[in-house]
Amino acid sequence: MTPRVTLLAGGVGGAKLAEGLAAVCAPERLSIIGNVADDHEFHGLWVSPDIDTLTYSLANLIDRQQGWGLADESHRVLKGLERLGCDTWMSLGDQDMATHIFRTQLRHQGIRPSTIAQSIADSLGVKVNMLLPTDDRLQTLVKTEQGWLAFQEYFVRERCQPEVREIRFEGADEARPTFEALEAIEQADVLLIAPSNPVVSIAPILAVPEIRRAVENSRATRIAVSPLIGGHTVKGPADRMLTAMGYRCSNAGVADSYAGLIDGLVIDEQDRADRAALEADGLQVLTTATLMTSAEEKTRLAQETLAFAGVCRREEVAS
Amino acid sequence: MTPRVTLLAGGVGGAKLAEGLAAVCAPERLSIIGNVADDHEFHGLWVSPDIDTLTYSLANLIDRQQGWGLADESHRVLKGLERLGCDTWMSLGDQDMATHIFRTQLRHQGIRPSTIAQSIADSLGVKVNMLLPTDDRLQTLVKTEQGWLAFQEYFVRERCQPEVREIRFEGADEARPTFEALEAIEQADVLLIAPSNPVVSIAPILAVPEIRRAVENSRATRIAVSPLIGGHTVKGPADRMLTAMGYRCSNAGVADSYAGLIDGLVIDEQDRADRAALEADGLQVLTTATLMTSAEEKTRLAQETLAFAGVCRREEVAS
Repeated sequence: MTPRVTLLAGGVGGAKLAEGLAAVCAPERLSIIGNVADDHEFHGLWVSPDIDTLTYSLANLIDRQQGWGLADESHRVLKGLERLGCDTWMSLGDQDMATHIFRTQLRHQGIRPSTIAQSIADSLGVKVNMLLPTDDRLQTLVKTEQGWLAFQEYFVRERCQPEVREIRFEGADEARPTFEALEAIEQADVLLIAPSNPVVSIAPILAVPEIRRAVENSRATRIAVSPLIGGHTVKGPADRMLTAMGYRCSNAGVADSYAGLIDGLVIDEQDRADRAALEADGLQVLTTATLMTSAEEKTRLAQETLAFAGVCRREEVAS
Repeated sequence: MTPRVTLLAGGVGGAKLAEGLAAVCAPERLSIIGNVADDHEFHGLWVSPDIDTLTYSLANLIDRQQGWGLADESHRVLKGLERLGCDTWMSLGDQDMATHIFRTQLRHQGIRPSTIAQSIADSLGVKVNMLLPTDDRLQTLVKTEQGWLAFQEYFVRERCQPEVREIRFEGADEARPTFEALEAIEQADVLLIAPSNPVVSIAPILAVPEIRRAVENSRATRIAVSPLIGGHTVKGPADRMLTAMGYRCSNAGVADSYAGLIDGLVIDEQDRADRAALEADGLQVLTTATLMTSAEEKTRLAQETLAFAGVCRREEVAS
């Protein structure tokens, strides 16, 4: 029997490992829990960027060049909205707009956001379980010199330029987990954290109190894949955000951000010098090539990570 | 001083006379009251086909070939919605979708539909007053052998094929007029009814009790332009619907449907034989070419109709 694998994942980086896992896992035994705290309402439509990136990637419909959005996209709706005087700093494609229209319609009908996410994934041919950590409103807010910004305002409109002073997850304390996400964590044999931004992609998932508790109490082997290579992120502001949040911008910092939540950490071979200190802190470490640019690299990293999880688990069982 | 002109208009046919009037009237003295009873919610978006046809026509953005929708249109959102399992029998273009998204967002914010309609018109460069008869929900329902259908279901999905047994305007009794529409009727020097479908384009405007009363009591010269040429409509099911509603499918039937609401009727020169009977019934009649295929024909019919209104008015004042 293949292991039951559950992945906590953000957007672009998370989607790459999700694709690798989808290539090697039985789909019904693979669950992806995505980040909803980046969600934002644009033009009255509920946009869920990280969930869409995961779904579009797994459906092989993603724009491979930019890592998000749909391939062969056009922007005629957005031009129409601009003509009507709307702010159009968020690039929403025409095909993508269908997803947001569909999601918004179903939300207005009172359908659970997680049911909608799975339904979109199903329609696009995604076979794995596409889960949300919560159906409640959860929003990442970023404090800058301009005051508190919604995540997309900071990330897209301001292009991550303002210095980050504080991050908070509005609604987290009251957010209830979805039963699907709780079950996926509780029943997982292997619980993975994708090489996503620990501070704004993974932390908001773990900010749902019962989700965090379930990860803490999980009997699964818990492995994170570090998003850092040579002390930097492949893409996005994770390195600067780790620093801003008081973590070291290193694999040690990533490990600290997951303290009590992981048994092992996969780091890039460029960072093999970090290994000893991580192991001294009680973590098991896999050193390998973590950059995923091709389908082969995604699959290989997924295989190696699962194999590593198997080893970790056996050691744990033996102790 | 040019007269204050107010036009009651449906979609495609109404938009043609509206364009003609816009070419000859001072824009601030021209008000168009459109039909909202064809409105329909598609994919959670509020679509207002007749109002959009008027607005797009007056903005010179209309698809001249089909008479509705925007020129140079694409349908990628609709294809996306189809992929998500949605019914996509209503052809909604990508640029057009921006209008529906914008309208829906503002409606959810509690903004009056008539304020939204004027705002869209303004943004698209329309200079005339674009008015709604009511901000309340008003829906044309068509009874067929399939039971009651929403107007767009009958008109677009069923392509006007089912036999029409009954028509009703849901919400009409409770519908309150907008103050802008009431004012435009009360202050008009010339009150025109466009060559639109009397039964499903003009009747629902007049179904708002206070709108009908204002037209009845108006001191304006009230002229309708018949939609029939040689006993048939240029487009659309008005001829069959007149019959179904118990009216004669002729200019006499059109005049009957506007009984007590008009002083004069403009009919096509092909139907000059109808003149005597109409005059015998107390109507003043202008016989001219009413087919509007070019901008010149629209302008000419508008000019002739306004000139005719001037004559009618003088006669009335003299009496």
